[in-house]
Amino acid sequence: MLTFVLVHGAWHDGSAWETVIKHLQAQGHQAFAPTIAGHGKSVDKNVNHAQCTQSIVDSIVGKDLTDIVLLGHSFAGTIIAKVAEAIPDRIRRLIFLDAFVLNDGESLRDSLPPHYQALFDSLARESDDRTMVMPFELWREALLNDADLELARSSYARLSPEPYQPWIDKLDLKQFYSLPIPKSYLYCTEDNVLPQGEQWGWHPRMSNRLGLFRLVQMPGSHEVMFSNPVGLAEKIIVAGRD
Amino acid sequence: MLTFVLVHGAWHDGSAWETVIKHLQAQGHQAFAPTIAGHGKSVDKNVNHAQCTQSIVDSIVGKDLTDIVLLGHSFAGTIIAKVAEAIPDRIRRLIFLDAFVLNDGESLRDSLPPHYQALFDSLARESDDRTMVMPFELWREALLNDADLELARSSYARLSPEPYQPWIDKLDLKQFYSLPIPKSYLYCTEDNVLPQGEQWGWHPRMSNRLGLFRLVQMPGSHEVMFSNPVGLAEKIIVAGRD
Amino acid sequence: MLTFVLVHGAWHDGSAWETVIKHLQAQGHQAFAPTIAGHGKSVDKNVNHAQCTQSIVDSIVGKDLTDIVLLGHSFAGTIIAKVAEAIPDRIRRLIFLDAFVLNDGESLRDSLPPHYQALFDSLARESDDRTMVMPFELWREALLNDADLELARSSYARLSPEPYQPWIDKLDLKQFYSLPIPKSYLYCTEDNVLPQGEQWGWHPRMSNRLGLFRLVQMPGSHEVMFSNPVGLAEKIIVAGRD
Repeated sequence: MLTFVLVHGAWHDGSAWETVIKHLQAQGHQAFAPTIAGHGKSVDKNVNHAQCTQSIVDSIVGKDLTDIVLLGHSFAGTIIAKVAEAIPDRIRRLIFLDAFVLNDGESLRDSLPPHYQALFDSLARESDDRTMVMPFELWREALLNDADLELARSSYARLSPEPYQPWIDKLDLKQFYSLPIPKSYLYCTEDNVLPQGEQWGWHPRMSNRLGLFRLVQMPGSHEVMFSNPVGLAEKIIVAGRD
Repeated sequence: MLTFVLVHGAWHDGSAWETVIKHLQAQGHQAFAPTIAGHGKSVDKNVNHAQCTQSIVDSIVGKDLTDIVLLGHSFAGTIIAKVAEAIPDRIRRLIFLDAFVLNDGESLRDSLPPHYQALFDSLARESDDRTMVMPFELWREALLNDADLELARSSYARLSPEPYQPWIDKLDLKQFYSLPIPKSYLYCTEDNVLPQGEQWGWHPRMSNRLGLFRLVQMPGSHEVMFSNPVGLAEKIIVAGRD
Repeated sequence: MLTFVLVHGAWHDGSAWETVIKHLQAQGHQAFAPTIAGHGKSVDKNVNHAQCTQSIVDSIVGKDLTDIVLLGHSFAGTIIAKVAEAIPDRIRRLIFLDAFVLNDGESLRDSLPPHYQALFDSLARESDDRTMVMPFELWREALLNDADLELARSSYARLSPEPYQPWIDKLDLKQFYSLPIPKSYLYCTEDNVLPQGEQWGWHPRMSNRLGLFRLVQMPGSHEVMFSNPVGLAEKIIVAGRD
C-alpha cells in the first residue's frame, strides 16, 4: 500500500484528481490531492512560489503523512522539487508527470519557448490581478488534443485564473539536485503543450535533468487526468512502486 | 457528420483510401478521395505543382463541397497547403498525415535529406518522362515496415511513376501561414521514410511549423492506409473533429 | 520457418532468451541462443572483443546454421556486426535490438555518455579481474523500469560480471558498412538506459547509421526479454521476416 500525494498543475485545483484517486484507492492505495495556495476558484490569487510550496508542505505535515510518493503535474514539478527540499524525510519517491524540472536558478517562465513567454506576459498584463486566463483554443488543441469537444469544454469550466508570480520567481534548486530521493518521470506521448523535440519538449529535455530516473510512458495528452484517469492511475502505480 | 476530402501521396492515386473511406462512412461521415493530376496509371505525367493543386480545387468545387476536413498524406501536405490558399472558405480543418509542411519558398525536394535528393534526381534522370519509379526495397523496408511481404507486394502493384516537376517547384506559402484554419498533424510513430529525429523527421520538425496544432499519433508506418486502414480511419476522426 | 540466432547483451548469457525462444518455436520457428565467450557465471572473464565474436561464429558454424536471422541485443550489436563480416553468406538478415551500432573505428565505450564512461571505468578498476558488476539501482530504475521489484530482483540474480576489454577494443567496421545484408532495428520505446534524445539515445542516433533499415518499435524497457518475452518474440518475427 502506497500513500500518494498528487499536486495539480496551473489553472487547476486538487479536484482535478478525483477520478484518479478513486482508482488508486480501488487498487488499495491512499491518495491525497491538496490545492496549492492561490489556486482554485474564488481565492486570493496574490501568491508567490514560496507560498505555493508552503501550502503543500503544510498540508502534508498537517495530516502527518510520511513515506509518501509525491507527484507533481506540469507547473507542480517546480513545487514538488521545493517541497522535497523542505521535508525530504517524508518522501519515498518523486514522480514528475509531464512536469517542469527547472535548472537551478531558473523560473518556470525561463524554461518556456519565446511565443509562450509573450503570450503569458500579455495575459497577465491584461488582467486586473496579474493572473492568466487559459485561452480555450489553446486548451482544446494543445492540452486536451486526445479528448472530444464536450470533455474539452466541461474540463475547461473547472479551470480558474493562474497567478503569474509563481511562474516568475527564480528557484534555488541546489539542495533538490543533491537529494538522494528516487525519481520517476511519467510522460504522456501526445503531450504537445510544450513543442515536442529536443529544444522545448518535456522529455527528454527536462526528464534528463533528474540524473538517474525511472521513465514511464503512456499515450495521452497533457490533461490525461481528464481524458484517461484510469489509465493514468495505473501508470502512477508503475511510476510510484519501489 | 463530417465531410472528409483525403488527398493521396506520391506514387498513389485516390484508390489508396478505399478501405479508409468505407470505415469513415460506417461511422456516419462523408469522404471523397480525388486523384491528383498526373497521378494514377496510364495518365499524362507531364504536370507541375500548380496543376496538381488545381485538380484538387476543381474536384472540391466541382462537387460543391463545403465545410470540409481536408487531409493530405506525405507529398499532399504541399497540395493541401496550396488548396487552402485557393479555397479557404470551404475548409473547416486541415489534417497533415505524415505530410510535408514546407517553409515558404521551399520545394519538396529542398526538405529532403541529401541521400534522397540524389536518389530521386537519379530516378527521374533514368526515366523517359521525368518520373520516378519507387524502388521495391525502399517501399518494403522504409514505407511498409509494419506489413508482411505479401501486403508490401500487393500494395506496390498499385503504384505508378511519380512526376518529378511538382517536387521541384518552389512554393509561395505566405498566405498559407496566415490562414486561421485549424490544423492537425497525424503522425504514425513507426514512419521511417524520412529518417526519424530532429534533423529530417516528420514530427516534430515539420509539424511544429504549423504553429498551434492538434497532435494525434498512432502506431504504424508511412503506408498505414494499407497496413491498418481501420485504425487510421479512427484517428482521422479524432484529428478531424472540432 | 525462420532460423533465429539471438545474441544476448552485457551481463547476460544465452539463458536470457529462454521464454522468447519458447514462443518463437511455438510460432513454428527455430531459435538458438549461444553464450558469448567470457559471459555467464563461473567462466574465465579474460576475453577481448575478437574472442567474443569468434565464439558466436564458432557456435553458428559448429551447428552449420545457414540462412539465419541474427539478432544482437545491446552490447551484442557490436558482436553481430563483426559476425556478419566473418560469415556474411550464412546471414539472411540482421536485427539490432536496442543495440549499439558503432561507427567504424569506435569502441563501445566511445559511444557512451561521459557519466557512464566514468561509472564503468570505476567499476572495472574496483574489480580483481577487470569486470563490471551491474549496480542494482541502475538495473532497477534504468534497465527494468517497466517491471515490478520482484522481477527486477529475480532477473538481477541471473547476471554475472561483464568483462571490460570488449568494451574498449576499437572495431574496424568498414566491411560491415559495405555488406548488402538487410537490417532491422527493433526499438523499445521506454528504453532509458542510454539517455533518450538525439545526443545519446539508441534510436534514431544509432539506428540511422544502418542506412536503409526496417524500423520496428514496441513498448518496453531495455530488458524486455524479461518484462515482456512474448511481446518481444512477436516483434522479433516482424523484424525478421522478409
